[in-house]
Amino acid sequence: MNQDTREDTVLSAIEERRELVNAAIDEELPMAEPTRLYEASRYLLEAGGKRLRPTVSLLVAESLADVEPLSADYQAFPALDGSTIDVMAAAVSIEVIQSFTLIHDDIMDDDDLRRGVPAVHREYDTETAILAGDTLYSKAFEIMLRTEAAPPASLDAIELLAQTCTRICEGQAMDVDFETRGGVAVDDYLDMVERKTAVLYGAAASVPAIVMGADDKVVDALYRYGVNVGRAFQIQDDVLDLTVPSEKLGKQRGSDLVENKQTIITVHARDHGVDVDGLVAADDPSEVTDDVIDDAVAELEAAGSIEYASDLADDLVSRGKAELDVLPDNDARTRLREIADYLIERGY
Amino acid sequence: MNQDTREDTVLSAIEERRELVNAAIDEELPMAEPTRLYEASRYLLEAGGKRLRPTVSLLVAESLADVEPLSADYQAFPALDGSTIDVMAAAVSIEVIQSFTLIHDDIMDDDDLRRGVPAVHREYDTETAILAGDTLYSKAFEIMLRTEAAPPASLDAIELLAQTCTRICEGQAMDVDFETRGGVAVDDYLDMVERKTAVLYGAAASVPAIVMGADDKVVDALYRYGVNVGRAFQIQDDVLDLTVPSEKLGKQRGSDLVENKQTIITVHARDHGVDVDGLVAADDPSEVTDDVIDDAVAELEAAGSIEYASDLADDLVSRGKAELDVLPDNDARTRLREIADYLIERGY
Repeated sequence: MNQDTREDTVLSAIEERRELVNAAIDEELPMAEPTRLYEASRYLLEAGGKRLRPTVSLLVAESLADVEPLSADYQAFPALDGSTIDVMAAAVSIEVIQSFTLIHDDIMDDDDLRRGVPAVHREYDTETAILAGDTLYSKAFEIMLRTEAAPPASLDAIELLAQTCTRICEGQAMDVDFETRGGVAVDDYLDMVERKTAVLYGAAASVPAIVMGADDKVVDALYRYGVNVGRAFQIQDDVLDLTVPSEKLGKQRGSDLVENKQTIITVHARDHGVDVDGLVAADDPSEVTDDVIDDAVAELEAAGSIEYASDLADDLVSRGKAELDVLPDNDARTRLREIADYLIERGY
Repeated sequence: MNQDTREDTVLSAIEERRELVNAAIDEELPMAEPTRLYEASRYLLEAGGKRLRPTVSLLVAESLADVEPLSADYQAFPALDGSTIDVMAAAVSIEVIQSFTLIHDDIMDDDDLRRGVPAVHREYDTETAILAGDTLYSKAFEIMLRTEAAPPASLDAIELLAQTCTRICEGQAMDVDFETRGGVAVDDYLDMVERKTAVLYGAAASVPAIVMGADDKVVDALYRYGVNVGRAFQIQDDVLDLTVPSEKLGKQRGSDLVENKQTIITVHARDHGVDVDGLVAADDPSEVTDDVIDDAVAELEAAGSIEYASDLADDLVSRGKAELDVLPDNDARTRLREIADYLIERGY
């Protein structure tokens, strides 16, 4: 299948599930008192988002149950022991955690915009944003308890959710730390990416298997699928910032270099003798020209840093896709393979 | 028993369990990487604290199991079905949640000190404090999963923990809201206190019963004990700020009035025609004299506001203690009654 066709089927798979996910979010996280707190908690979720993680969860469930995609009710879904569970609750719980981490990250990074709207601490205030994140945090656990899975499976899902949140905090702490110190090794950087971003993909892919009662072998393979794809996604983000034209990127190409952001590419390049901090003199993306970025990219290419990152992303996607062999061979599994490819091919 | 003797037995009960609780905190929340994050997460827990909530949890467990206080290993404790559980893990989980809420509250209120040491966002920075709170949040769930209770009971404990956290966020949001607007009704204020403070006492008292496999009737009564005692504790705090001499209080008496803090007393007084904002002209506790506070207290007394709060706290303690009738009549239950009295009699 060529890249454009694959992108079409992936985008359709996401699109077809998005409205169902959004309706479930609305149901699982209804408005309540105090109004301002719940408005702030729902603000970012209502602002949009692809719902990529819930889509992965729902496709895993469909593949495991070996049902025709979109043929079964996600909220009364066939578990492997013949019982009926709400696999949508698990998918929503993951998205709610994602939303909590974005709200708190935006406070920490003092970012003004998210999903094209003001960050929660800008639209409301920092106090409300901290509390909105904290509220989503406990709500995600409440929602994960509503899958109606067998109690031991439900406990396993809760445990994975809690451990995942701990890892995300550790990853964010490492990221904050890396911004203020030099000498970050490639392995430390990859460890940070795994915790900050990839483990939530791991949870998204494996939680449906847990609540449906799949074997540990299946659960673990799906977790590795998610983690590898999540790592590839983040690494590819760093590559795209340098290689995709500004018009297509929607922002100045090379903005990571201008803002002295650590990426897998700069960490690798520094390790290989490149004076990374001297690559781009400007401090503001609006002051930089494409020629300056071209020169910087050439130097990073000469050091092998872009190829290193790009190859690593490819390799992680291949390894991730191979894990899907534990699933029955069906349409949903094909979509999960395509999502893995899509994440590193997307033009933005 | 007179007040001084009761205070002695309560303080001993707390003291005798504190070292065990502290050792368990250290075990359940070990240092890990990244170091700075875990140091910040443990900082406030290591700075001290009475461990009042874990003490309530452990006493409830001892009373329910009808064992001699301190005779059974809390980490291999007899559940009601004859199995062995780690009731200490439940107690520690509650204390970890308390610590997370203090760290985030101090950021929101921009308080400099807590437990005699700098607040976490002062000792470290705001980013680290947000993350330290977030880390304790998920750790509390991880720890609550380690009681080894029967899976359905374990799920009930997790559900109560999640719902409690949601209520605490709601209460804190109401508190922040009340600070910036007038016209808060007494019932709204009491609702805020219940969510912000009392529900965690409710969880502390009822979680051990849940994991030990007690009936719903027992669990619910213990929850009401905790909530009523927690509400009384917070209301009495407002009374003590006005009635205990500064020397004994360790800060200027009436500082709530100087700082225009809403309390149950000012809310009641405003409702009864007192010009609360005009009571004390100074804006800084160091600029106010005891005479000014005496005059303000006299006006609040004339409006019946102090008596109202004091009577309410007494009534809540009585109602809380009555709920303990579901427990066997033993020493641990006596301590739980005494703790209820102690919380509104304490001298500071």
